[in-house]
Amino acid sequence: MASHDPLFSSADDHLRWLTQQASLPQGWRVATGSCPFTPPESGNAAQVTLSLLVPDRPTPAFAGVFTRNAFPGAPIIVGRKRLLESHCGGVVINNKISNVCAPEGISRAEEVCAAVGTALGLPGQQIIPSSTGVIGWRLPAEELSAIAPSVVADLQSHSILPAAQGIMTTDCFPKVRRVRLPGGACIVGIAKGAGMVEPNMATMLVYLLTDAVVEREQLRAALPAAVAPSFNAISIDSDQSTSDTVLALSSQVIPGVSDDSLRQGLRQLCMELAEDVVRNGEGVRHVQRVTVRGTKDDAMAKTIGKAVINAPLWKTALAGNDPNVGRLLMAVGKALGNQYPDFCGDALRMSIADEEIFAQGCFQLNPEREQRLQAYFQHCELYPARPASDGITFTSPVRYPPHPRVVEISIDLGRGDGAFTVIGGDLTHEYITENADYRS
Amino acid sequence: MASHDPLFSSADDHLRWLTQQASLPQGWRVATGSCPFTPPESGNAAQVTLSLLVPDRPTPAFAGVFTRNAFPGAPIIVGRKRLLESHCGGVVINNKISNVCAPEGISRAEEVCAAVGTALGLPGQQIIPSSTGVIGWRLPAEELSAIAPSVVADLQSHSILPAAQGIMTTDCFPKVRRVRLPGGACIVGIAKGAGMVEPNMATMLVYLLTDAVVEREQLRAALPAAVAPSFNAISIDSDQSTSDTVLALSSQVIPGVSDDSLRQGLRQLCMELAEDVVRNGEGVRHVQRVTVRGTKDDAMAKTIGKAVINAPLWKTALAGNDPNVGRLLMAVGKALGNQYPDFCGDALRMSIADEEIFAQGCFQLNPEREQRLQAYFQHCELYPARPASDGITFTSPVRYPPHPRVVEISIDLGRGDGAFTVIGGDLTHEYITENADYRS
Repeated sequence: MASHDPLFSSADDHLRWLTQQASLPQGWRVATGSCPFTPPESGNAAQVTLSLLVPDRPTPAFAGVFTRNAFPGAPIIVGRKRLLESHCGGVVINNKISNVCAPEGISRAEEVCAAVGTALGLPGQQIIPSSTGVIGWRLPAEELSAIAPSVVADLQSHSILPAAQGIMTTDCFPKVRRVRLPGGACIVGIAKGAGMVEPNMATMLVYLLTDAVVEREQLRAALPAAVAPSFNAISIDSDQSTSDTVLALSSQVIPGVSDDSLRQGLRQLCMELAEDVVRNGEGVRHVQRVTVRGTKDDAMAKTIGKAVINAPLWKTALAGNDPNVGRLLMAVGKALGNQYPDFCGDALRMSIADEEIFAQGCFQLNPEREQRLQAYFQHCELYPARPASDGITFTSPVRYPPHPRVVEISIDLGRGDGAFTVIGGDLTHEYITENADYRS
Repeated sequence: MASHDPLFSSADDHLRWLTQQASLPQGWRVATGSCPFTPPESGNAAQVTLSLLVPDRPTPAFAGVFTRNAFPGAPIIVGRKRLLESHCGGVVINNKISNVCAPEGISRAEEVCAAVGTALGLPGQQIIPSSTGVIGWRLPAEELSAIAPSVVADLQSHSILPAAQGIMTTDCFPKVRRVRLPGGACIVGIAKGAGMVEPNMATMLVYLLTDAVVEREQLRAALPAAVAPSFNAISIDSDQSTSDTVLALSSQVIPGVSDDSLRQGLRQLCMELAEDVVRNGEGVRHVQRVTVRGTKDDAMAKTIGKAVINAPLWKTALAGNDPNVGRLLMAVGKALGNQYPDFCGDALRMSIADEEIFAQGCFQLNPEREQRLQAYFQHCELYPARPASDGITFTSPVRYPPHPRVVEISIDLGRGDGAFTVIGGDLTHEYITENADYRS
């Protein structure tokens, strides 16, 4: 959510805005459908949703970036293979079960692709599968295959919103963004992901659809460049999923979009969706943006920024609107001391918003500054913490992003040209509630 | 707390046991004293406690290991210098203020050392300072110096327990351990530390006193060897303090203790104190011990073990007694994929207690096993979570370790001789309560 975004007063208000964003690019169709299933691992009945993203004609212009987790899900393994195919005829996504290290994972993923392909009149190898949900459970391939024909029959060409909603798990609200490209083309993106979100890439499923005519290799070069400063620069809880996927696909309808425009558009879309993911992060009540400068290179700046947004003690202080800036220094010093022990930290300067809190080797603190920082944290809070009505279940009172404000932190090590900006959240009772009893 | 430890039924019961452990080695004296102070940074009055550990005669046999944080506190900077002195005549420790990157940090630390030295009839350079508490605030050197003479006058030679209590901050209970050495010698250790605890070293202050005659260089070799598998193998929240200190000192009274006995004793003492620190970790309701084997070397095993005990999603699942073992795999795969991308994970096997949960590339799950794991997690819980009476303040109902049980996790990568064992906790509402409003 960029700073120029409108303010929303309710979930309905937000939904109206999402609906405008969600108009499909030309040459794209979308549908969703649900069915019941019972995982044999738990024995408890549940509902799974299947979402389809389908170009009017199979396209050669598709690109993907996947998790670096050493135990990727079956859809990742299949997806990497699909990148070698000449054409992609559609993407099929299910929630609830991530199909990671589960029995017959690959054959079950292929079974669903085959069923969707048959309904579309295409070979299964032209369908890319994606799954999100519990790790280790079997994909209900039979149930999903059975509803594939009716979902295909429901394909419509006006909105991606049903898919943005269909892929949600613990997300509080759907995430849809669009950017215009020259000549009437556009890119529309959706994302899901709220926990298990860290680098390389954020734990998410992200789908970026365009109608701009692009070369396959052009798209495959532009996508990682857009992912690096966006999805790979956020962290909600430092955990990295086994299912992370960002796909970009073009229906190849509108010619004349330059490579620059494409790259710029993709980057903007990814930056906005990445910030949406953090703002909707599990239990997140404060978004923090940490800009690190003055390091020997950008990678070092990213390491230090990540150490800050992943430091539990700093994150809990932020949650409590407590400007306990000693914990900020601790996090910077932890990363420096362990990973760059020879780098001299003497030139360190740190600010929060306009307040300089550290300079000349020393904290710059007084009670007035503390009060201003506390007020600033409160101003940036998405919603105030409130006691749980049952004493233990903390939930967000809003199902939409109430404002675009971010706690801005600047860290300058003063000894080089390296710089990087990362975005993260805080660590709250709401996060614990969500994750200490996620499945049951 | 080792498995042979007694069970405690109350804080009084625990205190009686601690009192037995706390008998001072020969040639040592201890005292504590408190005074009020008002930090100018906050303006709120508080109480600070000063603890003294004093050998009967200044000793050449002292050793120290300090934090690797790049912004160490003034006492660390002074302490490193003290290691070059010929003798140590005492250790002075204060709580509440850590004296890190605060104005006149070093001169204030030296001022307190000088006051203690004067009261003892020794030069200030023979006194090692230690501080723990809020980062960034000024040390109340004047107030501490003023009470130094009366604390010195109170020195007694029977128990280290007052110091174990005097150095506490967020600790729920004092931590004291003793080991016997041949010929009637012993080592007695105390530790404080409950949050900001991670590797290299745990965020703690630890003092190990012995009466065994040892060479200075012998002690300085034995201490790091004892710290590596103990304090450097634990993590409560992955945060690494600016004040970590482990000191070992001998009063040089009882001869005839072999180097082997000393090393074995130091190691045992450090292992027990390190586990005590985790069991008393902020908000910890489950202690987990993760043993990783089959890696190419021990360092790789340690990296993977740390990734597990620091993974928020696995820690929250454990807090909820939820055997969401997919998150365990996620954590292993995150470390492998990012730090050992060329290592083949195909031979992975994982067990929790006696239950094999992963083998042959696939989870081994069924509802019965899930139920047994859930029951096991409950059995290992230090105390059951209970709703906060005010809806938001979660606190431990016990101020002592109610049992020594640990969730035992085994991860075998099957491709080498590397092995390492780490100990960590879970992530709970109690942790958030403690840290989202720690200072105010």
